[in-house]
Amino acid sequence: MKCTVCRGPAIIDIRRHNAYFCPEHFLRLCRDQVAKAIKDFSMLEPADRVLVAVSGGKDSLAVWDILLELGYRADGFIVGLGIGAYSSSSTQHARAYAVRRGANLLEVDLPTTYGYDIPEGAKAARRTPCSACGLTKRHLFDKAAVDGGYDVVVTGHNLDDEAAVLFGNVLHWHTDYLGRQAPVLPARGGFPKKVKPLVRLGEREMAAYCVVRGIEYIVEECPMAEGNRHLHYKEALNAVEARSPGAKFDFYHRYLANAAAAFRVAEADDDLGSCERCGAPCSNEICAFCRLVERATTPQPVTLGPRRRRGANTTTDRPTIEERTP
Amino acid sequence: MKCTVCRGPAIIDIRRHNAYFCPEHFLRLCRDQVAKAIKDFSMLEPADRVLVAVSGGKDSLAVWDILLELGYRADGFIVGLGIGAYSSSSTQHARAYAVRRGANLLEVDLPTTYGYDIPEGAKAARRTPCSACGLTKRHLFDKAAVDGGYDVVVTGHNLDDEAAVLFGNVLHWHTDYLGRQAPVLPARGGFPKKVKPLVRLGEREMAAYCVVRGIEYIVEECPMAEGNRHLHYKEALNAVEARSPGAKFDFYHRYLANAAAAFRVAEADDDLGSCERCGAPCSNEICAFCRLVERATTPQPVTLGPRRRRGANTTTDRPTIEERTP
Repeated sequence: MKCTVCRGPAIIDIRRHNAYFCPEHFLRLCRDQVAKAIKDFSMLEPADRVLVAVSGGKDSLAVWDILLELGYRADGFIVGLGIGAYSSSSTQHARAYAVRRGANLLEVDLPTTYGYDIPEGAKAARRTPCSACGLTKRHLFDKAAVDGGYDVVVTGHNLDDEAAVLFGNVLHWHTDYLGRQAPVLPARGGFPKKVKPLVRLGEREMAAYCVVRGIEYIVEECPMAEGNRHLHYKEALNAVEARSPGAKFDFYHRYLANAAAAFRVAEADDDLGSCERCGAPCSNEICAFCRLVERATTPQPVTLGPRRRRGANTTTDRPTIEERTP
Repeated sequence: MKCTVCRGPAIIDIRRHNAYFCPEHFLRLCRDQVAKAIKDFSMLEPADRVLVAVSGGKDSLAVWDILLELGYRADGFIVGLGIGAYSSSSTQHARAYAVRRGANLLEVDLPTTYGYDIPEGAKAARRTPCSACGLTKRHLFDKAAVDGGYDVVVTGHNLDDEAAVLFGNVLHWHTDYLGRQAPVLPARGGFPKKVKPLVRLGEREMAAYCVVRGIEYIVEECPMAEGNRHLHYKEALNAVEARSPGAKFDFYHRYLANAAAAFRVAEADDDLGSCERCGAPCSNEICAFCRLVERATTPQPVTLGPRRRRGANTTTDRPTIEERTP
């Protein structure tokens, strides 16, 4: 197995490129693919102050590293979600990377600052954990970006993530979510611009990137995400990809090129108000995050027997927040 | 396992309906689902003269049988494709059904009437077998319907077929094919109306229908269709269906309800001309079928060595005819 570029010993094959790469040229490929995504979708300007939403996993640490390598002014931001050992390990990996790299990591600890963690907060608010977590993180990323004067929020969603969300939205033909699925969400009504520079790279490549760069990351999936339908969608797409390398890339990128416009709707958000409690832009008096905080931190009445519909929200076919605003 | 309707012994479960059925109520379910599809999509009028495109497989024999049970005036039409034992067995099953039922079966034998069979004709015309076969059958169905004064052509495409074609078109975002994927193609420019009354029933149900009704059909897949990508698409969708019963039904029917309009384009076909040879409506001087016949029946020059690109057309990623006009 020789590197397609330099004929040196290769360490990875990428079937959709029909190519093999040595460590040096694999890293170059990853940087080039990110640079191409940034350019093609007008994600970042050279002078932008960038806030990377970091989870401690491979994708967010890799995209942070690649942006720093490409010369962007990128700080990290991590939320301590209070999901036991998973969260503490995630934070440690993010801190270790920041220290080693001499990069700036902002932190907010959910239990300390807001008085709840994701497992208990989701239960109290009768949301699925993924829904409560998504809502929480989006709000805190937005707030950190606005408070810190950042121009853009970067997330580590990779090609597999985006293709799986697209597949889920297509399976149900949620045309409104399809209309909002894009690698760039422009700034609007007080929300910061958000971009996904990894949409040309899969999760296998991001794991390999971290290994080659010596970046330690949390390997485990979040323990709350078990049974998440996106994992099944990934499996189904992987079966197609195994027979037709490149199928996943085409599925996502041809969607953007050929079909996304058919579902796009004008966002009527110029008249967004502000949350009475936190000031965040929102269309109600109290924003969804503040309502979640209130429910998550209010002592729950003890109800007896059959009146309490335990886990009622977890079995519906309602799409998760991730599907709605990917 | 008891019938959900009458509590008698059930012979089949249908997970997406979360129900079990005895033979009698299963047959009623199939007829009801076909009647609902016919009504919802305005497929047939009671007085219509209907031509059913029969292959000898479970779907086309079942839809013919159900239409006769529902009281429609439905004749069958089969093309002898010359694919060895597969074709002769197919024709025998169709004839046996027609005789037993006292129904009228029209037949055209491709080698006898047009001088080629699908395997040799496809090779000579440098098309994939599925492409040559689809083109041939569509032309002959259209011609038989027009010549015989039929109001509408019925095909046996079932839910699995349509969902797989949709999945293929979505994976590649062939927006023009998406725009034409519908359970009803209206009559236009000399082409007859075409409808698919089985879009609410899966292939498992159609096999069971034939078994319960004692209809013998050809079980084998066409030997030319091996490696057909639709079979892989069916597998991927089946994996999703296994975890979420009803996913396939929703995928197809929500497409029709929520998204199909976004891809529909006005067909500019009012000024179609006629083929100089056969008179069929077409936009060129000679229609695609007559060109196929010409190439398939013209002796091929012997070419030597590397000049002949053997099978060049079979390895491209071009969609098959089925994807284009499902």
